[in-house]
Amino acid sequence: MLKYELLKTDGQARRGRLTLNHGTVETPIFMPVGTYGAVKAMSPRELEEVGARIILGNTFHLWLRPGTKVIQALGGLHGFNRWPHPILTDSGGFQVWSLGKLRKIEEHGVHFASPINGDRLLLTPEESMRIQHALNSDIAMVFDECTPYETEGQLTTRDEAERSMQLSLRWARRSRDAFEQLGQGPSIQRGGDRDTLTEDRNALFGIVQGGMFTDLRDESLAGLTEIGFDGFAIGGLSVGEPKEDMVRILNHVAPRLPQHKPRYLMGVGTPEDLVRGVAAGIDLFDCVLPTRNARNGWLFTRFGDLKLRNARWFNDPRPIDPGCSCYACAGGFSRAYIQHLQKVNEILGARLATIHNLHYYLTLMQEMRSAIETGTFQDFVTRFHVDRGRGVDGDRPDGSSD
Amino acid sequence: MLKYELLKTDGQARRGRLTLNHGTVETPIFMPVGTYGAVKAMSPRELEEVGARIILGNTFHLWLRPGTKVIQALGGLHGFNRWPHPILTDSGGFQVWSLGKLRKIEEHGVHFASPINGDRLLLTPEESMRIQHALNSDIAMVFDECTPYETEGQLTTRDEAERSMQLSLRWARRSRDAFEQLGQGPSIQRGGDRDTLTEDRNALFGIVQGGMFTDLRDESLAGLTEIGFDGFAIGGLSVGEPKEDMVRILNHVAPRLPQHKPRYLMGVGTPEDLVRGVAAGIDLFDCVLPTRNARNGWLFTRFGDLKLRNARWFNDPRPIDPGCSCYACAGGFSRAYIQHLQKVNEILGARLATIHNLHYYLTLMQEMRSAIETGTFQDFVTRFHVDRGRGVDGDRPDGSSD
Repeated sequence: MLKYELLKTDGQARRGRLTLNHGTVETPIFMPVGTYGAVKAMSPRELEEVGARIILGNTFHLWLRPGTKVIQALGGLHGFNRWPHPILTDSGGFQVWSLGKLRKIEEHGVHFASPINGDRLLLTPEESMRIQHALNSDIAMVFDECTPYETEGQLTTRDEAERSMQLSLRWARRSRDAFEQLGQGPSIQRGGDRDTLTEDRNALFGIVQGGMFTDLRDESLAGLTEIGFDGFAIGGLSVGEPKEDMVRILNHVAPRLPQHKPRYLMGVGTPEDLVRGVAAGIDLFDCVLPTRNARNGWLFTRFGDLKLRNARWFNDPRPIDPGCSCYACAGGFSRAYIQHLQKVNEILGARLATIHNLHYYLTLMQEMRSAIETGTFQDFVTRFHVDRGRGVDGDRPDGSSD
Repeated sequence: MLKYELLKTDGQARRGRLTLNHGTVETPIFMPVGTYGAVKAMSPRELEEVGARIILGNTFHLWLRPGTKVIQALGGLHGFNRWPHPILTDSGGFQVWSLGKLRKIEEHGVHFASPINGDRLLLTPEESMRIQHALNSDIAMVFDECTPYETEGQLTTRDEAERSMQLSLRWARRSRDAFEQLGQGPSIQRGGDRDTLTEDRNALFGIVQGGMFTDLRDESLAGLTEIGFDGFAIGGLSVGEPKEDMVRILNHVAPRLPQHKPRYLMGVGTPEDLVRGVAAGIDLFDCVLPTRNARNGWLFTRFGDLKLRNARWFNDPRPIDPGCSCYACAGGFSRAYIQHLQKVNEILGARLATIHNLHYYLTLMQEMRSAIETGTFQDFVTRFHVDRGRGVDGDRPDGSSD
């Protein structure tokens, strides 16, 4: 089941509501990344507490370990990881693509060696759909090729980007067909009278590719729209391109995505990127940044980023952000204490930092939802940049004094 | 402030109540070990939830990192680690002793090289008291030498054990004197009219040494009693001796400890050891076993130990113990899932296992307290051994089938 309600707009920014088999998600929203079936350092309870309502699972990693048989036996990914709310899974395409020289991309699919045990494996659109069906994710993604920004210093040419985009389109159709055969086809292909029969089906999203070329992006979107999907993602960004290219493609593609379907910007990004994405009309985001950075002592706050491992916090009694209501900050855990925990590799150090960063990200999304509702999104954006630029304790905004 | 009320006895087993500056502790109780100011993988909130009411901090580790200045600036160890309930700190003696050839024990104290940066350091009874005073632990331990069971294959002789015990006695007196000078002296040395003035002082425990020789243990206890302490610990057990020696010394010393003061068995042990200790009249226990073993996939349950990494649990949908009410078990996290998390080094795998093991240990203590209250401790012990011997799913009780 997938229903997207567009509740309110403010400029291009959208306030929506996504109803999926495992619950309702208020958009725009950020989805924490649960690579191996767990958002690193977090429990499901803590995820709920920081405001998460949909998380991402990595098809590729779960396929390799523990494998779909186990997860299916445990009741799908929700039963396995005890997350009762919606889950989106990627297709595995990005992970096999990231293997670089260890993989070979052909028309049929991608051949590669397992990074776990060297086994020769093949991932295809059909196999990706089979896995995501077994995981029973609320939103499955089509198997695609992520067009690189550059390869060994050579920028991807228009021809290369076009060939890659066309391959992704053919894979998108195969993904859709395979998804349908699994009893998961998009209702757009079915008569209204059969809606009751398909109520518990999961959703399938297409992914717009086309590299840094706006006309290829248009062509990709047109092809995907013709095939028909429940939602649309922008892929192939945050892959090493300059920020201005990212912004250019985002601002070109986002407003052209179908108005009454959810829009997902994949693998992006910083708090500034989230604000930029919402301003362009994006509803869903995911990124490892808040969780990975937390474990490395990089904290996001309303007033800029705080590099926890800097010596200046050695005996600082203040929480990460005195104005924050997360368990780490409201619980009174000091910068000195969390720095100490991270220095001596105590798990609680990673935990408190992760709780804070995810709480910050999800609160930021909540604030943007409220601003759109009240028609004050532009004011919010202005204040957001002023606040973030202030710096923690008057640090330089880019944190370079650290 | 330290008040020990002996509420009820059942055989040698004691049901008591310990009132300390940071709260009341129902005894007998197990104290989770928070080496670096955090019980590994746990948050303070989770510690409360599993039933912990007093935790242990390691003076030696906290002295080296982050140092007493920082902790004092943060309001002592309670302010630093945000644990509002009582804390007991060891003296650092056991840790410097464990450095082996890297340390040199003299009358004045122990010289050693810092395992962090090689700095040449000296730990003395006076320094240990100063550190524990700065940490503001509710219960400080005297600085002592832990008499080894054997050294390079040679059993400790009676002469060696006696010399070691006498040194510990002299250090115990110096510890008491230094503790008093810090304004922390035991009220036993003061008039009843001054009780109000000393209400917020912390407690200091003596440690009975004497190796495997009961007469030396008696001598140690007599010396400590003469000096005067708020409570008494049995040290120098679980240092490599055969179980029967441990039991012999425990059963000899425990009943001889002062009746109206708390009794603490240091660094022990397995669930069976806890039951044996309570039966002998012990009130307080600490051990790294439940936390360390959890991270290695060794789970304690009512029906025996479960080795989580065994292939047989690969797709097992059951929680660690279906009858357990901890977050890991009642939350429905399966053996399959926790095994997977530990295999892929997800922090949540260590967390769920630790929560379960500590919950098991603290529930075991709760059950023993109830049994003593109702005068059914011996029945409890019988049932405990039957249950533990049953094995998880009819495994062989020693878990050897794993």
